[in-house]
Amino acid sequence: MKIVKILESTRPIRSDIRNAYIDFSKMTLSLVAVVTDVIRDGRPVIGYGFNSNGRYGQGGLIRERFSPRLEESDPATLVDDTGENLDPHRIWARMMSNEKPGGHGERSVAVGTIDMAVWDAVAKIANKPLYQLLAERYGDGNANPRVFVYAAGGYYYPGKGLDGLRNEMASYLERGYTVVKMKIGGASIAEDCERIEAVLKILGPGQQVAVDANGRFDLDTAVAYARALSQYPLFWYEEAGDPLDYELQAKLAQGGWRRVGAHAAASLAGNGRFTTEDTESTEPDRRKQSSGSRSGKPLPFRPPCPLCSLW
Amino acid sequence: MKIVKILESTRPIRSDIRNAYIDFSKMTLSLVAVVTDVIRDGRPVIGYGFNSNGRYGQGGLIRERFSPRLEESDPATLVDDTGENLDPHRIWARMMSNEKPGGHGERSVAVGTIDMAVWDAVAKIANKPLYQLLAERYGDGNANPRVFVYAAGGYYYPGKGLDGLRNEMASYLERGYTVVKMKIGGASIAEDCERIEAVLKILGPGQQVAVDANGRFDLDTAVAYARALSQYPLFWYEEAGDPLDYELQAKLAQGGWRRVGAHAAASLAGNGRFTTEDTESTEPDRRKQSSGSRSGKPLPFRPPCPLCSLW
Repeated sequence: MKIVKILESTRPIRSDIRNAYIDFSKMTLSLVAVVTDVIRDGRPVIGYGFNSNGRYGQGGLIRERFSPRLEESDPATLVDDTGENLDPHRIWARMMSNEKPGGHGERSVAVGTIDMAVWDAVAKIANKPLYQLLAERYGDGNANPRVFVYAAGGYYYPGKGLDGLRNEMASYLERGYTVVKMKIGGASIAEDCERIEAVLKILGPGQQVAVDANGRFDLDTAVAYARALSQYPLFWYEEAGDPLDYELQAKLAQGGWRRVGAHAAASLAGNGRFTTEDTESTEPDRRKQSSGSRSGKPLPFRPPCPLCSLW
Repeated sequence: MKIVKILESTRPIRSDIRNAYIDFSKMTLSLVAVVTDVIRDGRPVIGYGFNSNGRYGQGGLIRERFSPRLEESDPATLVDDTGENLDPHRIWARMMSNEKPGGHGERSVAVGTIDMAVWDAVAKIANKPLYQLLAERYGDGNANPRVFVYAAGGYYYPGKGLDGLRNEMASYLERGYTVVKMKIGGASIAEDCERIEAVLKILGPGQQVAVDANGRFDLDTAVAYARALSQYPLFWYEEAGDPLDYELQAKLAQGGWRRVGAHAAASLAGNGRFTTEDTESTEPDRRKQSSGSRSGKPLPFRPPCPLCSLW
């Protein structure tokens, strides 16, 4: 079997929302379809993928480098040992051939979007849900029916106000989410505290709110926010500063843990206090599972006493 | 004055050369022209830029995001206070607006190529060489007439052999370069040592050779190479491992310096032993000058005794 073609379409997801760093009025994303020659119910199996917002669609990279590498490969080198399904790892290695190490930002979006579509095709060809296929290949065969998820929203937009924020968060809670996330850092500390308090007031038992600064703060501001936030039972305080500002990350880490240095970002995320979405720190060895925000265990945001000296 | 248009052309620089990580048979680069409405000698001033090889041309990002942001900006926001020349810093900030922090890999090429063209236009509009303009703006007005440069080559290619390597390096020395650089890591240690020795034999007084592994090695291999290389008076040993493999970088640093952690990469480069081309570690604050390989002072590669235990 083989990949017949790879289609990409960059689509606008125009919105007037903004976080502390970017507005989304010109945001785009990539939709990818990996078309195979496998026929199911009289139709070709097609895997679909898309990228999350924040880093824009990557049609240029996909069309110039990653799709051609796959389309020009000997199909036999992209399938598993049975020859009956795609091998996502061989495909990923082929996409990343002739690529300079490091600097994965845009590239990880391009490769990851195709990778998502490949896994979708693999599960469809195997004729089982992807979660079941993953449990069989990498676990004990029993898929975990429970996965922690949260509702990420609480963006700033013109005229939203506290009522708009409360209504948005209430709609997530009504849909069954127990954790909601809101943006901070796009307003003053006082205003953000008011926004957080508005959300805290509508939370019921077992419900929590997380905050996300999207990497906006310098060290002084990050610490000032941490001090102000320490009065609230927040779920977490995400991406306080630039993910590549190692000095800031180290100092924030030193406030909370004795471990600093190379794995500070990972330990921050794993400990649930600060988190980061820095894609390049997890990509080099994709077999290592990220302990980042989306898979992290819910740990309460509550600074231990030794922190108070920094915060 | 204003930018009239920005042109980009992605061009192949096809070659059969390869380093330890990538071959260049499908390598491309971007050529950028920033066309202004300033007329000199009856013709419009145009700034030109291009990117170095290794990360491919970035026509997609340039056309989709960075050129449109400039072309849609109020021209008055992109010029300096006199209104008579472009302001590269304002232009850079505009290009980077609505961009997520971190993950600069591809983006730094796209933005940097336009940035180069902008500076070229600025110097032409000011009617003086760029080096003189920079000395006046950021130095004491006296441009340093001497800049350290070296000849980077020594790639692997089919049938090259030791004679081919020697002839190539000799041609650089004949052109006046006192430092030449060659690739390692694309062959066995024994073969690479043979290649290095072949080059060392043609060096005259005051001439040196540097080696570049292009991020290929794991820790064990990096250390094995370091041990083998310590017998030679090399100029430097560049990019031993993946720039994002913080553990490897830290351990290599611990071999040579007491400083480890956040700024390991920078200190490695500054000390001239190991160097890195990791673009994202220098971009977040572009006002901080990189101490990387291309601007670093020539320091000899010669491991002090405490290193021998690691190497």
